[in-house]
Amino acid sequence: MRGNTFGEVFTIATAGESHGVGIAAIIDGVPAGISLAREDIQHDLDRRRPGQNEFTTPRNEADLVKIQSGVFEDKTTGAPISLFIPNTNVRSTDYDQVRDVFRPGHADIAYALKYGNRDPNGGGRSSFRVLSVAVAAGAIAKKITPGISYTAFVDQIGSIRANIDGTPTTKEIEASPIRCPDISASSQMEDLIQQVQEEGDSIGGCIRFVIDNIDAGLGEPIFNKLHAKLGSAILNINAVVGIEFGDGFALASKKGSEYNDEILNRSWKGITTETNRSGGIQGGISTGMPIVGRVAFHATSSIKKQQRSVNSANEPAIVSTEGRHDPCVLPRAVPAVEAMAALVIADFTQLQKLDRI
Amino acid sequence: MRGNTFGEVFTIATAGESHGVGIAAIIDGVPAGISLAREDIQHDLDRRRPGQNEFTTPRNEADLVKIQSGVFEDKTTGAPISLFIPNTNVRSTDYDQVRDVFRPGHADIAYALKYGNRDPNGGGRSSFRVLSVAVAAGAIAKKITPGISYTAFVDQIGSIRANIDGTPTTKEIEASPIRCPDISASSQMEDLIQQVQEEGDSIGGCIRFVIDNIDAGLGEPIFNKLHAKLGSAILNINAVVGIEFGDGFALASKKGSEYNDEILNRSWKGITTETNRSGGIQGGISTGMPIVGRVAFHATSSIKKQQRSVNSANEPAIVSTEGRHDPCVLPRAVPAVEAMAALVIADFTQLQKLDRI
Amino acid sequence: MRGNTFGEVFTIATAGESHGVGIAAIIDGVPAGISLAREDIQHDLDRRRPGQNEFTTPRNEADLVKIQSGVFEDKTTGAPISLFIPNTNVRSTDYDQVRDVFRPGHADIAYALKYGNRDPNGGGRSSFRVLSVAVAAGAIAKKITPGISYTAFVDQIGSIRANIDGTPTTKEIEASPIRCPDISASSQMEDLIQQVQEEGDSIGGCIRFVIDNIDAGLGEPIFNKLHAKLGSAILNINAVVGIEFGDGFALASKKGSEYNDEILNRSWKGITTETNRSGGIQGGISTGMPIVGRVAFHATSSIKKQQRSVNSANEPAIVSTEGRHDPCVLPRAVPAVEAMAALVIADFTQLQKLDRI
Amino acid sequence: MRGNTFGEVFTIATAGESHGVGIAAIIDGVPAGISLAREDIQHDLDRRRPGQNEFTTPRNEADLVKIQSGVFEDKTTGAPISLFIPNTNVRSTDYDQVRDVFRPGHADIAYALKYGNRDPNGGGRSSFRVLSVAVAAGAIAKKITPGISYTAFVDQIGSIRANIDGTPTTKEIEASPIRCPDISASSQMEDLIQQVQEEGDSIGGCIRFVIDNIDAGLGEPIFNKLHAKLGSAILNINAVVGIEFGDGFALASKKGSEYNDEILNRSWKGITTETNRSGGIQGGISTGMPIVGRVAFHATSSIKKQQRSVNSANEPAIVSTEGRHDPCVLPRAVPAVEAMAALVIADFTQLQKLDRI
Repeated sequence: MRGNTFGEVFTIATAGESHGVGIAAIIDGVPAGISLAREDIQHDLDRRRPGQNEFTTPRNEADLVKIQSGVFEDKTTGAPISLFIPNTNVRSTDYDQVRDVFRPGHADIAYALKYGNRDPNGGGRSSFRVLSVAVAAGAIAKKITPGISYTAFVDQIGSIRANIDGTPTTKEIEASPIRCPDISASSQMEDLIQQVQEEGDSIGGCIRFVIDNIDAGLGEPIFNKLHAKLGSAILNINAVVGIEFGDGFALASKKGSEYNDEILNRSWKGITTETNRSGGIQGGISTGMPIVGRVAFHATSSIKKQQRSVNSANEPAIVSTEGRHDPCVLPRAVPAVEAMAALVIADFTQLQKLDRI
Repeated sequence: MRGNTFGEVFTIATAGESHGVGIAAIIDGVPAGISLAREDIQHDLDRRRPGQNEFTTPRNEADLVKIQSGVFEDKTTGAPISLFIPNTNVRSTDYDQVRDVFRPGHADIAYALKYGNRDPNGGGRSSFRVLSVAVAAGAIAKKITPGISYTAFVDQIGSIRANIDGTPTTKEIEASPIRCPDISASSQMEDLIQQVQEEGDSIGGCIRFVIDNIDAGLGEPIFNKLHAKLGSAILNINAVVGIEFGDGFALASKKGSEYNDEILNRSWKGITTETNRSGGIQGGISTGMPIVGRVAFHATSSIKKQQRSVNSANEPAIVSTEGRHDPCVLPRAVPAVEAMAALVIADFTQLQKLDRI
Repeated sequence: MRGNTFGEVFTIATAGESHGVGIAAIIDGVPAGISLAREDIQHDLDRRRPGQNEFTTPRNEADLVKIQSGVFEDKTTGAPISLFIPNTNVRSTDYDQVRDVFRPGHADIAYALKYGNRDPNGGGRSSFRVLSVAVAAGAIAKKITPGISYTAFVDQIGSIRANIDGTPTTKEIEASPIRCPDISASSQMEDLIQQVQEEGDSIGGCIRFVIDNIDAGLGEPIFNKLHAKLGSAILNINAVVGIEFGDGFALASKKGSEYNDEILNRSWKGITTETNRSGGIQGGISTGMPIVGRVAFHATSSIKKQQRSVNSANEPAIVSTEGRHDPCVLPRAVPAVEAMAALVIADFTQLQKLDRI
Repeated sequence: MRGNTFGEVFTIATAGESHGVGIAAIIDGVPAGISLAREDIQHDLDRRRPGQNEFTTPRNEADLVKIQSGVFEDKTTGAPISLFIPNTNVRSTDYDQVRDVFRPGHADIAYALKYGNRDPNGGGRSSFRVLSVAVAAGAIAKKITPGISYTAFVDQIGSIRANIDGTPTTKEIEASPIRCPDISASSQMEDLIQQVQEEGDSIGGCIRFVIDNIDAGLGEPIFNKLHAKLGSAILNINAVVGIEFGDGFALASKKGSEYNDEILNRSWKGITTETNRSGGIQGGISTGMPIVGRVAFHATSSIKKQQRSVNSANEPAIVSTEGRHDPCVLPRAVPAVEAMAALVIADFTQLQKLDRI
């Protein structure tokens, strides 16, 4: 299977380019009998869509999803669900200027080297827009795992870090245009984003995620460990350059006695531990404690600032991107992190039915 | 496909427990006509095997691999390669003491919650021993990608960090019993490991890896991005809790103009950039620049220090692991990181043949 | 992966019901650089579409395909190709009468037993209409394998068998409304179909296929043998109940000396044999001789004749289907057999690039 | 995934050649908690093994299977099961004579064309011996589906056809050295096999199979229809050239009213129909009625009779195979048909758990 499909038994296949007619997805392995309304999906799409506020790209797309099959009278039938999100606001002329010059840090040069052709209209298949259908599929994944809560939020923009304990509420997160539930940090982040935008630049950051109320036993041994699959899913989100679970990189400097989470109690639902440094995963399998992780994003590569590159004749050239780009992709990436996590958890939740006779 | 198989068209299926008769693998999708001798595989196994020096577990296993099929007169035939590594030094009595008590931080509680049974002989399927066949498969992967060099080395143990520029040589790495090519840091790491061992404790760390001389165009769009697949592979190595590519988490605080690698030159083999902050990957596809990344390991969970847990009756219990365990798994994990990276690159190298007509 | 996707590295995912808004497909693993126009696909769809002549269902659908991604200026880009075929002629009222009664021989009872729900509008996902996108994907598969010719034709309707030697031309086949290139047999078949239609009944038959000019070496050992994969593909076509390769079932009564095809010549392209009883496949791998096979179809189950069944309350009921159904599906199934064969051959043609270093 | 692995969530990966050290398999996706003893597997292997009576090849192999992992105290643990069947009776000198000449009808020429090399010791990977591990995996599949009975038997050898109604008992089948429960036909078949053996020839035939007591709802829509998957599995058995389900090819000449099985009753377990012409499958999904099918085998290609071929220099040559070959493979293929059917049914039985929420 080539790289446009994700999942083992709950799968999403995708197609579409940011400057074509729209983005398509086929979601298979959805159990019959789940309540699913268009609004369930649209809600998460609205949180990802461009143009939702001043901190995102001014490219304004309604991102209205059509459910084309697999659902009858708001119930899933067991048949595959076909989704389509039309592109309504395509302005390829923005990209004319960069047609002949490769943008530093951008996927276009990599695609050209891979396929021997070049998408003449900018991002094409590599655009964050393509992940809109993954966000849609994530909304379906959430319906498959109704007891589980998926929470992601902005933890860091540039050098500004939020100070958050435990799992913030959706209300706290959505109250911030940055999706950072630490109000004071959020305010500083807003200023920073406006500043880099004025400079014609962009800025990176981190998103934290928490998966609460998860069953023990999710994850497969050896090659489909739960955190490996979550890592694989989330590293596929545009601009992600790192992921860590539990206390992550900080554990490198810790001893075993400082890492191990002492066990207080055990039930069929999982264990309760004194601490949760392992982030709810041991040996690649969920223990029942909350799964926590942190994701690093590089700044978006499309900036107005002038940079050195080469053109299609391999001559030196200066490039400056004038299109409508996000100065900081993280606020819109929050629902994508949730969605990718939900895709993995829903898949493993289905697979778990196969573990015992 | 369940979680004991890895790869798309170059695949490894594994089976076996650390305390059974041995570890088996079936490696499929190996092209016909590759030179492959048993020594090619054994060499990497010797670097992973326990008991190789005083800094690893005293459990001494020769880890002698048998090639059971798929190779004739030291050439691959195109048929699947069956490998078997017998277990020769099994002492399950070491584990009697922990039979009834779950070890904090260890996979045994997770397996018990998942499958409803308990491996009575310790680690079983979750042991690092099981990855021996992945190291063996990695040696085959290296033969499939002869021009590419895979280099991994210890970058950090506890709070001690190595100071390394560029790609160290194999000789420099193997000269250190810790596999840290910074001689001064290596010496401090040796002291630290001995100290934690005396304390009945263990210690975490980081491994860095560099893949040099790689073609542009490896990696699949959207869901099999090169770094996502490398991440998935490497996160499956025991005790790994984080991974980052290029400048990784440090990029979270950088601007786009500080991230983008300016392009100096382009050929059919790839691009040359002024810097390599993106770690040789853009949009999930290799650009031809070296691929670099860093991996965080938690300290091994099996320690002599007493810790609180529960027993099978869910009563409070104190656990202290007396078995033969690594105080620091990183020196032996270096070939595992190389191998998992090689499995991914060999798979994508084969897949790349399909990209164009 | 669930049952709505086909292929290993050249894949098609499908969704959609016959009575919904349309049928969708995502075709992945299409190499970049292939010439592909909408007409290439539409041509085969026109041969499958209902209402093309008096011997097919009067349900008239234009089956106009939209290419939504993956193609730029009539060349494939390497990105997945999204197709959509809108349903334009849906008359669900036809099915009101059978809403409560299960039709003998029809998939609706099987779907109800599987998913615990019932498509209220007749065929739904089990309709032959769903395969329209497979025919479309087959047209793309043919472009991936330009040297190979795929020929299918009606060989038998009821007890009337065609008398054909070798591979008939497309012109000969398309000259017959039944797609039977034996003019005399075709004429008798037309009469037979009209007769069963007047009786409110339907009729079965056989389709033969020939794949000419194929390379040797296609097919994978043990579990993806070429004929097993062709069998799997073609058995998925609605109403297929049997398949045979080469001399097929007739070989059951033959000796080895009567089966073996004596070898006259060998080149890198394959072998030439005196006979072709094995149908161009030995040990599951193509030899370079034409691949030949024969496919049996049962009569369509939806007939006007009254039959005994049960209703949703499990009470005895009489059912008679008044909808617009094919009295004989074979003329329209000819392009489906070609398409499914082409999907398999294109997949193996891509896989063959991986066989040797 | 390449062609040495079978199954979606219950999978078998295989390796090994008939003239190497042995045949290996890794069986994954086995639920934890199933009773499994070595004897459960050995029993079916004994029915497949060569040398079991005068009607099979005199190559005598004990085919003793080793369970190397995944089972503890005769219970499956959920870990993958590694099997190994050593080759004990390898006489490659038998094959010296055919080293340079390609045998008509045999896989060796196809493998040489595919991989560019030649197994110097005869059959190698294409031998029926390789399927021994599939028979072993089939025994595990039967344990996963304890309520279901799998019955296969010889229905035809040459022109001699058995006369059997319903499902014969295992005792009736095993009472015949041919595994044909019609005593009179079996006796004639024995004579025929002895006769062709004396002629230095071989003979084909058919095997029928019945799967009783199966749940409704097995099978996936569109591309993994139950009969398509059974067809794919069984067509992979050496020498199989055709398969039909229910009344199969005979249905080609029947009308819809002669095909449809009238429905008498319906429960959650499935339907009861007056007839079973559809062979227990409608729309690719099991209905609860017995699944029945018939499989055609060509005569084995390795015969003593002289035949024309070419040698490695492409010069005309005469070939006559002196090795120890079956004059008729069908008696030993009976357990292989059962096993391949069981692999499919066990896989779908696991998948069925995913159909509804």
